[in-house]
Amino acid sequence: MAPKYKLIYFDARGRAEKVRMLFHVAGVQFEDNRLKREEWPALKDKMPQKQLPVLEIDGKTQLCQSMAIVRYLAREFKMYGKSSMEAFYIDEIVETVTDLSQSSVQAMFEKDETKKTELMKKLVEEVIPRSLGFLDAQIKNYGKNGFAVGSGVSLADIIIFNVIEAVKGREAAEKFPRLNENLKKTEEHPKMKKWLTDRPKTEM
Amino acid sequence: MAPKYKLIYFDARGRAEKVRMLFHVAGVQFEDNRLKREEWPALKDKMPQKQLPVLEIDGKTQLCQSMAIVRYLAREFKMYGKSSMEAFYIDEIVETVTDLSQSSVQAMFEKDETKKTELMKKLVEEVIPRSLGFLDAQIKNYGKNGFAVGSGVSLADIIIFNVIEAVKGREAAEKFPRLNENLKKTEEHPKMKKWLTDRPKTEM
Repeated sequence: MAPKYKLIYFDARGRAEKVRMLFHVAGVQFEDNRLKREEWPALKDKMPQKQLPVLEIDGKTQLCQSMAIVRYLAREFKMYGKSSMEAFYIDEIVETVTDLSQSSVQAMFEKDETKKTELMKKLVEEVIPRSLGFLDAQIKNYGKNGFAVGSGVSLADIIIFNVIEAVKGREAAEKFPRLNENLKKTEEHPKMKKWLTDRPKTEM
Repeated sequence: MAPKYKLIYFDARGRAEKVRMLFHVAGVQFEDNRLKREEWPALKDKMPQKQLPVLEIDGKTQLCQSMAIVRYLAREFKMYGKSSMEAFYIDEIVETVTDLSQSSVQAMFEKDETKKTELMKKLVEEVIPRSLGFLDAQIKNYGKNGFAVGSGVSLADIIIFNVIEAVKGREAAEKFPRLNENLKKTEEHPKMKKWLTDRPKTEM
C-alpha cells in the first residue's frame, strides 16, 4: 500500500513549500496540513525538534528537517538523478542555492542600517552574480532540454525554482539564459503550473 | 582504476575537515592539498565558485560545496546507510548539526554586544539542549553499538564529531549519554584516532 503522507506546517510557503512542490510535481498525494497559529503552542512539544515542517508517514513516523525530507522524497520519487554523480550535481546546486538564500535572508533581516547596506552590496555585487552564474554553467554542462541535471525533472529544479521565488530573484536570473530557461521549464511543468495557480495565497 | 582524489583547501580544519575525516575513516587515499594564503589569489578564479574546498577527481572534475562533496563520497564509500530511510536519518542528523553549527557561528561572531548576549543565551538555553537532546534520542532509536545510524560508521558519525569539535561542544554533550558514547566511539575508531594524532595542528 502506498504510504500516507501528512505534511504539517503553518499556512505559509516558508520551509514547507519545496516539499509541497515536490509532492505535486511527482504527482503523489499528501495531506497539506496548515496549522492556525493558535494551534501551534499545544502541538509544539509533540514535534521531535519543536519545529516545523514535520512529515508524518502512515500516522506514526515523524520526519524533521525540510532539506532531509525533500532528499528522502526525491529518492522515493526517482527525482535524485540516475547516478551517484548526478546526485552530486543535484546536491551541489541545492547547497549553492541554500547559501544564496541564507545570504539574502541575513541581508534582508539585518537591523543595523550600516551593516545592512554592506550586506546588500555584497549580496547584489558578489553573491548573486557568482551563484546564478554558477547555476547557469552547471545547467549548461549537466542538464538537458532545460532541466538542471540530467534529462528529467529533479530535486535540483524544484529547489532552484523555490529559492529564486523566495528571494524574489526572477529579474536577476533573467541575465542568465540557461537558468532563465530552467525556471520557465519548471514553472510550465503541467503539475507545477496547476499548483502555482491553485495554492493558497499567502504572504510568505 | 581507483579515482585519484585531491582535496584543495587552506591549512585549516574549517569546511574541509569533515571531508578529510571521511577519507581517513573510509581508508581511502587522497592528496590533502593545503594552500598557503598567498597562493589563493592566483587560484581563486580557476575555482568554479571562487571558494574552497574543492575536490578534484582524476585531475579534471572539480566538485564544490563541502556538504555535497561528503554526501557524494559517503555514497561511494558505503557510508550513507543501507536503505533510503537510513539515508534519511543520516541527513536529518546532518541538517540538525549544521543548524547548530550556524547558530553557534552567528553568536560567536556577532559584534553588537547586546545582540551577542541575546544570541548566546538562546544558544545555550534553547538551541544546544534541543539539538543535542534530539541527537541523543535519534542515536537511541536508530543506531546500534554506539553508531549514530545503523550498525556501522556513517556520514552521520563523522558530521556529529566534526561539528561538536568545531563548536567546542564536548562538555555540553556529556549530559547526553548516547551522544557522548557516539562521540567516543568515533574518536576511538582506529583510523580516526590515527588522523586526530597525525593531522597538522592548526588554530581552526
